[in-house]
Amino acid sequence: MSYNIGVLGASGLVGQEIVKILEERDFPLENIRLFASERSAGKTIEFKGKKVEIEQLTVAKAKESELLLSSMPSGISQEIIPEIADSNTIVIDNSSAFRQVEGIPLIVPEVNREAIPEQPEIIANPNCSTIQLVLVLKPLADKYGLDEVVVSTYQSVSGSGQKAVEALREESAEQLKSGKKQAKYYKRPIAFNLLPAIDYFHGDGFSNEEVKMLNESRKILGDPELHLNATCVRVPVYYGHAESCYLKLNKDFKLVDIKDLLAAAPGVRLYDDPEKAEYPEPVLSEETDETLVGRIRRDRVNSRALNLYITANNIRKGAALNAVQIAEELV
Amino acid sequence: MSYNIGVLGASGLVGQEIVKILEERDFPLENIRLFASERSAGKTIEFKGKKVEIEQLTVAKAKESELLLSSMPSGISQEIIPEIADSNTIVIDNSSAFRQVEGIPLIVPEVNREAIPEQPEIIANPNCSTIQLVLVLKPLADKYGLDEVVVSTYQSVSGSGQKAVEALREESAEQLKSGKKQAKYYKRPIAFNLLPAIDYFHGDGFSNEEVKMLNESRKILGDPELHLNATCVRVPVYYGHAESCYLKLNKDFKLVDIKDLLAAAPGVRLYDDPEKAEYPEPVLSEETDETLVGRIRRDRVNSRALNLYITANNIRKGAALNAVQIAEELV
Repeated sequence: MSYNIGVLGASGLVGQEIVKILEERDFPLENIRLFASERSAGKTIEFKGKKVEIEQLTVAKAKESELLLSSMPSGISQEIIPEIADSNTIVIDNSSAFRQVEGIPLIVPEVNREAIPEQPEIIANPNCSTIQLVLVLKPLADKYGLDEVVVSTYQSVSGSGQKAVEALREESAEQLKSGKKQAKYYKRPIAFNLLPAIDYFHGDGFSNEEVKMLNESRKILGDPELHLNATCVRVPVYYGHAESCYLKLNKDFKLVDIKDLLAAAPGVRLYDDPEKAEYPEPVLSEETDETLVGRIRRDRVNSRALNLYITANNIRKGAALNAVQIAEELV
Repeated sequence: MSYNIGVLGASGLVGQEIVKILEERDFPLENIRLFASERSAGKTIEFKGKKVEIEQLTVAKAKESELLLSSMPSGISQEIIPEIADSNTIVIDNSSAFRQVEGIPLIVPEVNREAIPEQPEIIANPNCSTIQLVLVLKPLADKYGLDEVVVSTYQSVSGSGQKAVEALREESAEQLKSGKKQAKYYKRPIAFNLLPAIDYFHGDGFSNEEVKMLNESRKILGDPELHLNATCVRVPVYYGHAESCYLKLNKDFKLVDIKDLLAAAPGVRLYDDPEKAEYPEPVLSEETDETLVGRIRRDRVNSRALNLYITANNIRKGAALNAVQIAEELV
C-alpha cells in the first residue's frame, strides 16, 4: 500500500524533519506535497534529490492527499483540520488541538498502536515530553503497576521552534561577547539560564505543558487515574529533552528486572553506566532515534520506589518521527 | 567582639567570595589573613581598599587566627583542619569532610543556629544544593511535617569552581563558532548539554551529591528518618542552582498559608507570579542573596502534596555567605 502524502506546516522545524524522515525511512508514497502558510509558499524543500515546492495551504488542495502529516500551531490546526480530515484524508496531527478529544486516538506506536481504529480520520501525535516518558513507563506499568510518577523536565529550546533555536544562539553569543543578558524569544533570557515556564499557566498554577504530561500520559497508558506530577523547565540546550523521573510501583521489584525490561522495551535504549560517564544526555539524542534511559536506582527509603533519567530527541521521536511511525502503522 | 580572621583557600571561587562578603557585611574583624596553596602564595586580594597578600598555608600560621573560614578540597580539609581547629581557633569549613561527623554541627543559621555549641571547634557549612532546600523546607516541616521530598536539581557549573566556569565559556564559544562539542572540564561536554552526574557514584547508583542532599538535610532538619529523594544534574548555567521540588506534607494545608509561611521565612523571598514571568531563575540569584521560591501549586491528585521551585546563588548563600553568616553567629 502506498499513499499520496502531504505535509502541513512543511516549512517549520518539525515539518522539515518529517520530510527528512519520510526520505530516510523510504516511506512508501506515491507522491509528496508540501503545504504551509502564504509566507513560505514558493520555497522549496529537497526530497529524494528533487526540489518540491511548498504550496499555500487550502482545504481543497489538502483534501487531494490521502494521508497528511501536520505540524501547525494549535489554533490553526483546530480550525482547519476538521474541514480536511475524513475517511479519504487521514490527518496525523502534531498539535495539541485534538489530543484530549474523546474518540480521537493519541498514539505512540510502541505503546498503544492497538488504539488506532480501523478507519481513522484524525490521529493525534502526543506532546514531545510525554512520548519519551510513556515509552519508558509502559513496560513498568504493565508489569508492576504505577503508584505514582513525579517528573521534572529539562526541555530544549527547539521545542519552541526555529526562532527559539536562533534566539539561544544569539543570546549566548551576545552574552559571551558583552555580558549582556537580553531575551530574544522567551519573556526572559534563556542563554545560561533556566525558565520554569512552558506554555501558558492554568489557574491552579500548573503550566499547560505540565497539564499535558498528566493528561496525555493518562490517555496513552489507558489509566485515567494515573498519579503523575510534572514540573517543566526550559533549559539552554538546542535539541533533546531530559526527564528526571521518580516512580513508585505497586509491587516489589528487583532492579535487574527493571533494567532488563527497559533494555527490551521497543524504542528504548538502556544507557546506564555512570562511572564510565554513560548516562542519557540531550546531545546524545542528536545521534540516535532511541529514547535513552539511565541513572536507574532504587530509592534509599522506599524499596518500591526508583529513579530514572530519560532523554530523547524532541524534534524526532518527540514529534516528526513519532508522526511518521504512526503513518507507517497505517500502511 | 572582634576576631583575627583567616580565610583558607582564599584564591578559589568561594574563598574570594568569602573575602568580598566579609567586606560587604563589614564583619567585625581585627585583621584578615589569606591562605592558600603554594601555587597561589604571593598573589594579592583587595580587602577594604588594601591589598592583602596570600600566604602559603601552614598549620602554625593558621593557628594564629581565632576564626578561620575554609574552602579547600575535601581531602586536604580532612587532613589539615583537625590539626588546626581547637578552642582558640574555630574553623568554619565549607568542604564535605566533617559534615556527617557526629558532634560537628552542620549549620544554616536561619534553620538551626541553636545547634552551634558554646565552644565550637569545627563548624561544617552544608552543601550548596542542601542549603537552599532546607531554608524552604524548615518552616513547612515545623508547621506540617514532611512526609516525603522529591527533588531534581539544575546546578550551575560554578559549583565545580573557576575552571568549570571557564570551560562553559570556552565550550560555548567554540560550539557557536565551529559546532564542535568538546569537553574541557567534565568528562562530557557541558555547553548546550546536561550532565546527570555530580561528584562520584555510590554502589547503589546515587551520586554523592544526591547522597549529600539526603544526609545533610536530615542532619540540619534534625529528622534522621526524613524521606528525601534527590536527582542532581549539572546544567549550562554559570551561577545559581535551581531545584524542582515535590513535597508531601503530613497535614492538610491551604496554599495561601504555605505562601504566607514562605514569604515570612528568613532568607527566603516568595517570587511567584508566573503569568507575569515572575518565577525563580538562576540569573536572578546573581542579584540577590535571598533564596527565591515560586511555582507553588497543589498536586492535582494528592491534596497533601505540592510543588515548589527554588533558586539561590550557590557561591554566596550556597557557600561563602552561609559561612560568613555562621561566623556572625559567633560574634
